Amino acid sequence: MMSIYDQVAALCKAAKEASRSLSVTNTAKRNEALLSMRDALLSDMPAILLANERDMCAAAENGVSVPMQDRLRLNEARLRAIADALGALASLGDPLGAGEIFSRPNGLQIRRVRVPLGVVGMIYEARPNVTADAAGLCIKTGNTAVLRGGKEAIHTNRAIVAALRRGIAAVGLDENAICLIGITDRESASALMKMRGLIDVLIPRGGKGLIRSVVENASVPVIETGAGNCHMYIDASADVEMAVRLTMNAKAQRPSVCNAIETLLVHRDAAEAFFSAWRGALDAFHTPIELRVCPRTAMYFPDAVSASEEDWSTEYDDYILAVKVVDDIHEAIRHINTYNTKHSEAIVTRDLENAALFERTVDAACVYVNASTRFTDGEEFGFGAEIGISTQKLHARGPMGPDALTTVKYLICGDGNIRT
Amino acid sequence: MMSIYDQVAALCKAAKEASRSLSVTNTAKRNEALLSMRDALLSDMPAILLANERDMCAAAENGVSVPMQDRLRLNEARLRAIADALGALASLGDPLGAGEIFSRPNGLQIRRVRVPLGVVGMIYEARPNVTADAAGLCIKTGNTAVLRGGKEAIHTNRAIVAALRRGIAAVGLDENAICLIGITDRESASALMKMRGLIDVLIPRGGKGLIRSVVENASVPVIETGAGNCHMYIDASADVEMAVRLTMNAKAQRPSVCNAIETLLVHRDAAEAFFSAWRGALDAFHTPIELRVCPRTAMYFPDAVSASEEDWSTEYDDYILAVKVVDDIHEAIRHINTYNTKHSEAIVTRDLENAALFERTVDAACVYVNASTRFTDGEEFGFGAEIGISTQKLHARGPMGPDALTTVKYLICGDGNIRT
Repeated sequence: MMSIYDQVAALCKAAKEASRSLSVTNTAKRNEALLSMRDALLSDMPAILLANERDMCAAAENGVSVPMQDRLRLNEARLRAIADALGALASLGDPLGAGEIFSRPNGLQIRRVRVPLGVVGMIYEARPNVTADAAGLCIKTGNTAVLRGGKEAIHTNRAIVAALRRGIAAVGLDENAICLIGITDRESASALMKMRGLIDVLIPRGGKGLIRSVVENASVPVIETGAGNCHMYIDASADVEMAVRLTMNAKAQRPSVCNAIETLLVHRDAAEAFFSAWRGALDAFHTPIELRVCPRTAMYFPDAVSASEEDWSTEYDDYILAVKVVDDIHEAIRHINTYNTKHSEAIVTRDLENAALFERTVDAACVYVNASTRFTDGEEFGFGAEIGISTQKLHARGPMGPDALTTVKYLICGDGNIRT
Repeated sequence: MMSIYDQVAALCKAAKEASRSLSVTNTAKRNEALLSMRDALLSDMPAILLANERDMCAAAENGVSVPMQDRLRLNEARLRAIADALGALASLGDPLGAGEIFSRPNGLQIRRVRVPLGVVGMIYEARPNVTADAAGLCIKTGNTAVLRGGKEAIHTNRAIVAALRRGIAAVGLDENAICLIGITDRESASALMKMRGLIDVLIPRGGKGLIRSVVENASVPVIETGAGNCHMYIDASADVEMAVRLTMNAKAQRPSVCNAIETLLVHRDAAEAFFSAWRGALDAFHTPIELRVCPRTAMYFPDAVSASEEDWSTEYDDYILAVKVVDDIHEAIRHINTYNTKHSEAIVTRDLENAALFERTVDAACVYVNASTRFTDGEEFGFGAEIGISTQKLHARGPMGPDALTTVKYLICGDGNIRT
């Protein structure tokens, strides 16, 4: 019997082999594959929903949390949406093949063209939609994929991948373009992180623990995604009504996601007006929002919990918000650059100079002026699809569209040119 | 006394702090700094040459190899060239601040602008020119640098960095923009590799051992550079005279560099004509080139050493060349994709279809048709300067110009937009 490492390596080799043919397909063929994958998902709907039912029963038995059960659950509408997303990918523009061309004085002609990365590894948790989304984005961009989803979704993922592979084979492409690692223990994830030379990039999607483990242990190149300790700063000159609206949206429209804010910073000159208007909005909101406050904020919210040093670096992903009054914009920027995860940061202001200062000096993928941080998202940015939100600076930053799964290649043509 | 780790961390913190002011300087100020750095190098010439003399004496005493002594040696002309390179950087275009702008249906305006990475770490060996080159490229691109050069060059590097820092301070910028790690043992390099959160990218430059150690041990993001097991393939239809000229240039014009070829692949139908013409060129060449040959090549070079499996993956960096006869272009491409380091690969052919097949399916940063692999170089590509040659696919691939030291930032402006 092969070791888990060898089993994972065998899958990666198959995906690498498949990438040689995938990488030279044309746009029309890859889009045909996407439509065929969509059709296969739809025609396998009963089998996929049955497999999901099995995962849901196991999840209930094993006491999996209710939010995780919700992320795991498929139904006809959700599966149809997943299939439709593959169709939508087919009508997106093709990032491959385009590029620049330039010539050198010696007559060498240099083309810089966009090509696939090769093999993309994904490690993720219980969301079965990631399986189809990632597979679709990889096929769109001429890459092949090795997927390692969470154990809670294993039956659903197997059924989805079986359909996708049939769809790929139906248009004459290598079904190993999409490989699922069937073993869901920690060892299979560790093995995938070590497949240097076979995996061209590894993208973790999920909670903080998962992402940290991948970043620290992988020897293959990684794109770090998703950690979001985001801030909103209410400047002295802010429009109070706008500040209240943006704060409520950025914190509470969907608190579980990475682009929601975790700390609110308020200029001391705005504190009185802002806090009294905000109190009304908090009281009127359907869910209580717990505040963790600095001493100066406590004067306005005497019943609130005091913030500890740890609160400034905590990503609650919940109806909890840390609040701090600052002396000026410089203190706000210093606080943000000390505690943030370089994801999304916002200022509410009517002061042009402060807006520019904030944009220039806050170190983050996305910096907002008078808008909610919740817009950091591939769809909202108009990229058509999203493979994740990069919080690193190398290769890709912020919402990653299909482009992020490509690299470049230089093609140089001469007529016998030598270097002298 | 601080531990080596803490000393390195203190330098990295100083460089991080300096990067906050450097990153918001304008083009004119950064170019002014480059000219001031050049002037400081020139006015410190006696001190720098004296320090270099000290390193050269130690190198001779310690039995450092002659090629390494040559890389270490400075003289007035070399130092002037290093200073001139800083001046040339000042007249290059600025990659920062440019970008794209687009709007969304909800009125959000999104700007995607090019910004500095932050703090660049460099680990390199005995070449003191890397110290000034890297410092110049970092200042050009609004980054700060933490440099860790080899112990052989420590006095030279100290003198160069002292001059550069004085030049930077003279225009009112933070001299900690360029920091040199004065400790040159293995521990200081290991410490630099672990400065996650302080170092934004680490670029190793030097031999294979150094690069492998960085890639395997770093927890900060790395750009892998320089490993070059490059090939030239002589197709059946190749012009024999051109094939001989390109082979000699790609192997022997400067065999110690990463873009020189290490294995020559020859189509069996070209073997007789090519090998007899090539023999004349080999005999006429000023230095003997040692061949490591496959059995079919041995028929033409009966005295040559037989190639072992290891030869196909060896980067000789010397007057040694492995030679193999292949049945067709497919075997050549398979051989290359099995053994190459994704650096530079060339085909010599008159067949359009084979040229296209080679370009499409060979996996490398640079793919040449009828030209020498020796052109893989930032200057030769017209980038004005080069920080290294990336052999990875993420972020930067092939010769890296100033652009490779930048990332992007999304700036989003609204008028109170919330997500619904």
